[in-house]
Amino acid sequence: MTIEASETATDSAPIRIGMVGGGQGAFIGAVHRIAARIDGDFQLVAGALSSDAVRSKTSGAELGLSPDRCYASYEDMARLEAERSDGIEAVAIVTPNHMHFPVARAFLEAGIHVICDKPLTSNLQDAEALADAVKTSGRLFVLTHNYSGYPMIRQAREMIANGALGTLRLVQMEYAQDWLTEDLESSGQKQASWRTDPAKSGAGGCIGDIGTHAYQLGSFVSGLATNSVLADLTSFVPGRRVDDNVSVLLRYEGGAKGMLWASQVAPGNENALSLRVYGDRGGLEWHQENPNQLWFTPFGEPKRLLTRGGAATTPAAERVTRIPAGHPEGYLEGFATIYREAAAAIRALRSDAPLPDAVTFPGIEDGLAGMRFIDACLRSSDGGGVWVEP
Amino acid sequence: MTIEASETATDSAPIRIGMVGGGQGAFIGAVHRIAARIDGDFQLVAGALSSDAVRSKTSGAELGLSPDRCYASYEDMARLEAERSDGIEAVAIVTPNHMHFPVARAFLEAGIHVICDKPLTSNLQDAEALADAVKTSGRLFVLTHNYSGYPMIRQAREMIANGALGTLRLVQMEYAQDWLTEDLESSGQKQASWRTDPAKSGAGGCIGDIGTHAYQLGSFVSGLATNSVLADLTSFVPGRRVDDNVSVLLRYEGGAKGMLWASQVAPGNENALSLRVYGDRGGLEWHQENPNQLWFTPFGEPKRLLTRGGAATTPAAERVTRIPAGHPEGYLEGFATIYREAAAAIRALRSDAPLPDAVTFPGIEDGLAGMRFIDACLRSSDGGGVWVEP
Amino acid sequence: MTIEASETATDSAPIRIGMVGGGQGAFIGAVHRIAARIDGDFQLVAGALSSDAVRSKTSGAELGLSPDRCYASYEDMARLEAERSDGIEAVAIVTPNHMHFPVARAFLEAGIHVICDKPLTSNLQDAEALADAVKTSGRLFVLTHNYSGYPMIRQAREMIANGALGTLRLVQMEYAQDWLTEDLESSGQKQASWRTDPAKSGAGGCIGDIGTHAYQLGSFVSGLATNSVLADLTSFVPGRRVDDNVSVLLRYEGGAKGMLWASQVAPGNENALSLRVYGDRGGLEWHQENPNQLWFTPFGEPKRLLTRGGAATTPAAERVTRIPAGHPEGYLEGFATIYREAAAAIRALRSDAPLPDAVTFPGIEDGLAGMRFIDACLRSSDGGGVWVEP
Amino acid sequence: MTIEASETATDSAPIRIGMVGGGQGAFIGAVHRIAARIDGDFQLVAGALSSDAVRSKTSGAELGLSPDRCYASYEDMARLEAERSDGIEAVAIVTPNHMHFPVARAFLEAGIHVICDKPLTSNLQDAEALADAVKTSGRLFVLTHNYSGYPMIRQAREMIANGALGTLRLVQMEYAQDWLTEDLESSGQKQASWRTDPAKSGAGGCIGDIGTHAYQLGSFVSGLATNSVLADLTSFVPGRRVDDNVSVLLRYEGGAKGMLWASQVAPGNENALSLRVYGDRGGLEWHQENPNQLWFTPFGEPKRLLTRGGAATTPAAERVTRIPAGHPEGYLEGFATIYREAAAAIRALRSDAPLPDAVTFPGIEDGLAGMRFIDACLRSSDGGGVWVEP
Repeated sequence: MTIEASETATDSAPIRIGMVGGGQGAFIGAVHRIAARIDGDFQLVAGALSSDAVRSKTSGAELGLSPDRCYASYEDMARLEAERSDGIEAVAIVTPNHMHFPVARAFLEAGIHVICDKPLTSNLQDAEALADAVKTSGRLFVLTHNYSGYPMIRQAREMIANGALGTLRLVQMEYAQDWLTEDLESSGQKQASWRTDPAKSGAGGCIGDIGTHAYQLGSFVSGLATNSVLADLTSFVPGRRVDDNVSVLLRYEGGAKGMLWASQVAPGNENALSLRVYGDRGGLEWHQENPNQLWFTPFGEPKRLLTRGGAATTPAAERVTRIPAGHPEGYLEGFATIYREAAAAIRALRSDAPLPDAVTFPGIEDGLAGMRFIDACLRSSDGGGVWVEP
Repeated sequence: MTIEASETATDSAPIRIGMVGGGQGAFIGAVHRIAARIDGDFQLVAGALSSDAVRSKTSGAELGLSPDRCYASYEDMARLEAERSDGIEAVAIVTPNHMHFPVARAFLEAGIHVICDKPLTSNLQDAEALADAVKTSGRLFVLTHNYSGYPMIRQAREMIANGALGTLRLVQMEYAQDWLTEDLESSGQKQASWRTDPAKSGAGGCIGDIGTHAYQLGSFVSGLATNSVLADLTSFVPGRRVDDNVSVLLRYEGGAKGMLWASQVAPGNENALSLRVYGDRGGLEWHQENPNQLWFTPFGEPKRLLTRGGAATTPAAERVTRIPAGHPEGYLEGFATIYREAAAAIRALRSDAPLPDAVTFPGIEDGLAGMRFIDACLRSSDGGGVWVEP
Repeated sequence: MTIEASETATDSAPIRIGMVGGGQGAFIGAVHRIAARIDGDFQLVAGALSSDAVRSKTSGAELGLSPDRCYASYEDMARLEAERSDGIEAVAIVTPNHMHFPVARAFLEAGIHVICDKPLTSNLQDAEALADAVKTSGRLFVLTHNYSGYPMIRQAREMIANGALGTLRLVQMEYAQDWLTEDLESSGQKQASWRTDPAKSGAGGCIGDIGTHAYQLGSFVSGLATNSVLADLTSFVPGRRVDDNVSVLLRYEGGAKGMLWASQVAPGNENALSLRVYGDRGGLEWHQENPNQLWFTPFGEPKRLLTRGGAATTPAAERVTRIPAGHPEGYLEGFATIYREAAAAIRALRSDAPLPDAVTFPGIEDGLAGMRFIDACLRSSDGGGVWVEP
Repeated sequence: MTIEASETATDSAPIRIGMVGGGQGAFIGAVHRIAARIDGDFQLVAGALSSDAVRSKTSGAELGLSPDRCYASYEDMARLEAERSDGIEAVAIVTPNHMHFPVARAFLEAGIHVICDKPLTSNLQDAEALADAVKTSGRLFVLTHNYSGYPMIRQAREMIANGALGTLRLVQMEYAQDWLTEDLESSGQKQASWRTDPAKSGAGGCIGDIGTHAYQLGSFVSGLATNSVLADLTSFVPGRRVDDNVSVLLRYEGGAKGMLWASQVAPGNENALSLRVYGDRGGLEWHQENPNQLWFTPFGEPKRLLTRGGAATTPAAERVTRIPAGHPEGYLEGFATIYREAAAAIRALRSDAPLPDAVTFPGIEDGLAGMRFIDACLRSSDGGGVWVEP
């Protein structure tokens, strides 16, 4: 078990953080707040939780924010918080996708670090502009591809980097859900509504919402760069305005191949993100719904069940492990690891120290790669299913 | 539990069968012999087990064949057995792929039923010629796509036909192995040698050896016809003359989509054939290595674990079930079901009776469809990965 | 993959076998017949399939027996078959428990080998008498504790004997079913009726029907002798005349401890026989419903999934394996292994050769140990749950 | 998904909490701190983290405590905190077992609510005295039998209470670990040392450390009271002063039976707590290492996989669920639920409101029942394995 980052940071007060989005009825906002609390590194002190002034105050009050720091406008929040001596040091952006760019830019320009939900933006053009903004600002940009925070994912990445699989040949990615099997958006359900509205989510539906998670995970773990992709996107539910099922073939640099399936219309799948990677010396398999396990087969030997905190734990996994083997850590802990690492980085920047070695959270480059992937898949599929470069 | 076909066939002597191929060192020949024995319907009485006369006799003696019925040439065997009053009624063909066509044709022309291993032939031209030969002969042609003999596969097919999944949207097929991860063929291993030799296996390697199994299973269970496919075939092992990894996208009639992954270079996979089918009302999932289970999720309800012989068994599964739930039947029993059904058909034809209703074994049409699939995948991949019609 | 025993026995005709019990409506008779056929070692030529003369002939005809060898009395069958020059060499006894003893004795006295279903008899007194009869006869006595025929069970036994677990500490045995959750015997269901009738099954119900399987498996794999047991037997279903749930604590020679749970009233369990063995250097875990897998954990290392035919196969498993890894063998194959080994022994005895090394089928000693276990559990439970010696 | 308790408690400041024990090197102290943070209900403001004054200050500083609230003596802490207007409202006790009683009594007498780790005390006499102290104090006493905080455990309890299993017959409890397979205590490892020291852990080792968790879980879910137990306790590791393996038979009120196995010497088991409950209408099965799943079989129907947040979620599970199905919650979240419910109760008591309906955390009665169970098992085993009443 690892001592928590926050608990060893004896000379550091909690980091003051604000939130944009995440008011009543939101899902991911609450997740970010729990993730920020788990290791005790952050204190939520401000929010533009809703663009409706009353709702923003109500939501803020529920979270214990003081009324004068419940903003109706993110622009106001960025400006006014930047002016305060006790202003926020970081902001968590948990809005629908189309708002990521303007909100992030505003806070970066105000000198405030940004922790932003994925996908980076709702289109590639915004993404590139945001990348410029990050560069100019000198501030930290953290993208919550939270699945890369799981200890066994860190272990998989480390094992591959250390050659445990030999030369990589295959990356098989899946992310299957079933919650959009029917026309849920017509019922007014909040999550379904904005995630299937191209004006808010971007032109991609399933590809952006979950396909990009699977793609990021494959890239993060394998370390492979993508040469070309071929995608077949489908909207199965009548009337749906975005894709709800995605089949992608990938060709990686160096000759490895990949397949990626993402679906929101596969009954019996709740949040079935999985990753399998094969090389000429072995294979790895991981399933998000049982995240404390990683299957490892050195070619020609029996399959081994590696567990979080168990006998074959590697340093990269150990570093992000809180409790012993057999005591399952879950989604929130993986998410919290991104926050913990963001905190370590922010604390380092407070004192102009170099970023800690252990920091491996996804950032602007991952976000940009994800947007290029989405864009390539849309181009490929629009072209009838042809090979394109991302 | 179902009474066995053979044990109720009171007026029927065992069916006299011969075998071509399957001498010492072969794998699938022994499987066919066990499958033919399990339900007691067949008696092996003749063989051209090897084209080497001495080895054919030795192999035959081990199996208790009388020396005069151990042939060195399949042509002799077809001719001489057809002349005997106690000659074989059926022949099992378990040679490498390139011999399926000439051998099958010879026996069909001799008026002898054929039970043939898959794939049908080593190229599409032979397949079409063989289809003609079957038609002309009026004899039975059974293709041992044995996985379609599993009870839970029969149940899946029946459930889908009865609408349990609603309108189908997705068919996800996989067949992953790892035995060709290294250059096994150079070691002289018999199975690896002929299966990677285009002259014997055909132009397709993995696609023909196991990809076609997965494809047949998907088609058999879903009942969907294929409109077009796009394949990316790879030979990962240096020097290998055929593909050892196959990624395919499929578009089915009516708008359903499919993905098929077959690999012989995925360490940690022994014989990981699996099938998932999703419709607008539910999903099914099946794994060959645990074949007595079928996962069924009616959309919006908890996932159910259907078991062979268990509470929700359907007639089609019941019909091919030998022992109670919890007593696992395996690969050999599924294979034996194809033989049992072939026996029932052969017995019906003995007396010019109509074929039994329960007969659902794969035949020449499945074989032809499989060869069209292989051919289309080769054309697609040779074209750089483009959509083609099978 | 191993060449089948029968197929290498070039100079040996099939063994002529008869069957007592197993007529229409029986379960285990059909299982024995399939098991006897799988490896081609036996030919069924006679039967006293029912004590009703007409039914015996009808059942025999269905199985292709000649009418003069369909007996209504096992005594006649033993006598007349012994007189024939082509008489049976072995008999399979598949009657209810109370008939095992008289039938077995009759055939042994007629010089015919016996393959008998478990438990050995319906009470300890008969068992001891039968043991004497076996000794006197010089004939082979095979008890179909079929679960000991599974390859991974053979491997577990061999690994333990070779010290893979170090000094054994714990043996945890379970055998849970649910088919007697309700009062099925009152419906007239044939299996339920005799198995819950003390006059036919013996004083033990669940303890004899399945508890004894679990106990035999634990003993077979661990090699441990039992010092004392404490049992708490229950009849949960109102009106049931025998126990339907069994909890047992065991103390083994040398200080190891054990627990055994057998139940026929545990909804959700089909045939959930499992075994876990732990020593000071490692642990093993096996589940009958997925019999091709064996979990092995050397203490301090990751858990390994050993598979039938897979990378870490031991000689004892290899010897009883028919097909490659990933092609599941099941219940019938495990059962057939007992028959195959019986055949090898019978063939050796034909020529007065020594018994083959590989013969490890359960025999009269296992049967006697099982009856002592049942008897001890009944005494313990009748005494209120006290420690007794078996 | 449920809105978090804390986030709806708009008018409530965080609860001020202190901690006794849990300094550097401790395991469960860090768990309590994370659990207290997850839902934002508590603020840690004081501690007697170690009885060594320097270490107490150092540990406190790491956690951001102000130096004057880092106590070296729990008596001082209780007294001084009670005098402060901003003193702690509750204390978390995470010391070795033998200190639970004196520490808890001191804080209760000071009018401070107690959240205490399990088992309640190190012997039954202390436990009874503590029960009196709780009664007298009128303060809240929460025992962190954290496994009862898992959503699917809440669901199992609710389903059983609502009759989903009919009349209960069987409760099968297991808690297997392997970390004490060797003589770890001799190495000086802190956890092993005090947990195997009777002076600190009490006379029971494994029975108190984990057996009591399994017992509490069985009682909590089934609602059954225990009539008598029979235990066989073993110390397998040479030199070990307490039991490391426990086999227990149980007889419940009303005729149900139970078995409980707890072990710390079972290689391959990390934290394998499991529970199976069977009634005359169905069965349930749950495994702590995959806590988001609950298997439910209504007798005569297929097994269903119930998931946290999934299709068949019941109100009791819904109430303690934070994130959607397929996003695994783990050990820390289950633990946090106990804290969340404690917070709701403390807040209610602040304003003299009645305790909330949803409060189901374990308390002094569970602790007392656990100590009676431990005491009975020790008496039974010391008596040679006889039935005793708890």
